[in-house]
Amino acid sequence: MTASSIAKDLRAEIRAGTYKPGDRLPSEAALMTTYGVARMTARHGLSMLKDEGLTVTRHGSGVFVRSFDPIVFDSTGSGSDDSTITPVMDETDAGLTVRTLAVTPEEDPTEEARRALGLEPGVQVTTRERLHVKGRKPMLHGVSYVPASIAGGTPIAEDEIGPGGTYARLKELGHEPVKFHEEVVARMPTIEEIEALRIEPGTAVLQVMRTALDAEGAAVEYSRIVLDGGEFMLRYDFDA
Amino acid sequence: MTASSIAKDLRAEIRAGTYKPGDRLPSEAALMTTYGVARMTARHGLSMLKDEGLTVTRHGSGVFVRSFDPIVFDSTGSGSDDSTITPVMDETDAGLTVRTLAVTPEEDPTEEARRALGLEPGVQVTTRERLHVKGRKPMLHGVSYVPASIAGGTPIAEDEIGPGGTYARLKELGHEPVKFHEEVVARMPTIEEIEALRIEPGTAVLQVMRTALDAEGAAVEYSRIVLDGGEFMLRYDFDA
Repeated sequence: MTASSIAKDLRAEIRAGTYKPGDRLPSEAALMTTYGVARMTARHGLSMLKDEGLTVTRHGSGVFVRSFDPIVFDSTGSGSDDSTITPVMDETDAGLTVRTLAVTPEEDPTEEARRALGLEPGVQVTTRERLHVKGRKPMLHGVSYVPASIAGGTPIAEDEIGPGGTYARLKELGHEPVKFHEEVVARMPTIEEIEALRIEPGTAVLQVMRTALDAEGAAVEYSRIVLDGGEFMLRYDFDA
Repeated sequence: MTASSIAKDLRAEIRAGTYKPGDRLPSEAALMTTYGVARMTARHGLSMLKDEGLTVTRHGSGVFVRSFDPIVFDSTGSGSDDSTITPVMDETDAGLTVRTLAVTPEEDPTEEARRALGLEPGVQVTTRERLHVKGRKPMLHGVSYVPASIAGGTPIAEDEIGPGGTYARLKELGHEPVKFHEEVVARMPTIEEIEALRIEPGTAVLQVMRTALDAEGAAVEYSRIVLDGGEFMLRYDFDA
């Protein structure tokens, strides 16, 4: 019996519902007995399932079937105006709190942000970096860029941005976002993201790149949002 | 020198642009000389980058920095009506061809499709399964479900569905999709998806679950689309 045969058996049992989300899989010791294999073979079989994202390990208590009860990240929803980089995600309902990590009133944008905002090289932006946390688990990392010509001297460039966040302030400044352009990719997390978001092995991230446009069609904000793919689902509602 | 130190050096050089997308990284032999390490250490360093999705291996020619020149999957775009599960992706421009894998006029829906379509248990659907291929590389796998009460006896239940695909036929049948609800997750591919889409190691998939609603608000089609995350970017344009 090889590790991959053990993985195949367990995978089939997970799919069939013999082991349901949240259930504990047999221990290494149990697999050693059942299959008559060495500990390393049992361990390798279990690790294959982890790499596929089917299971999570809780140290000291075993290997469990991963459950996916996602927080909905709803870009197109008819939203509250009480949020910033996540226009309509109900952070209270989802139990998320927002930590502002850094506010930089003036700096060079990343090349990606510069292009999204349609800025000439050398033009500066105000940058806000934040982390959305559930309990002690970081869930989402976002960086928001607004041209410093708009944000300079306003609460957007201050630590305390006030109710409604960036979009509410942009509205007050005559640059209400009325259109959004979003791009979404799925990818493996970087080493830094694994640490910052405490991402489980076998988990991808969603990267959302959103550009907000005002009524003149000018790009007034760009957000680069990285979400733990094991925790979120994106939702869009739109007309044909 | 450990494998992870070698990986760290190479990762930094990729980020700094010393090695650009498409560039070949130093061979195992070159790393053995540069770092004074055994072949297994060099190999392990390179494999760490592959697991992170930073590189791809082309057998016989080496390890290359992954390039990402994505095909845009544009759900909200003002679309052509010449496609089916991908309303507006310009398959001709992207060089994709569509292979119908199976058409099943009547069967039980998956539990997921049944719920999305709001069907009672036991109600049957017409299922169309297809693969979008670029050259010889499978890129996207889609399964489309339409209540058999709508699709039965129509071209939706036939191998040759005709120009415009499912959405065009639904329109002719008085069930034109006018609203869409989409859910998106990022996850690791299953073993079967790795084989079916020939997915590179270190690559996530995007799973798009789209429900099409007619003017009465009835769900008339549900699609479950799995896209190779190394090949696609989703795009959405919407109003505040």
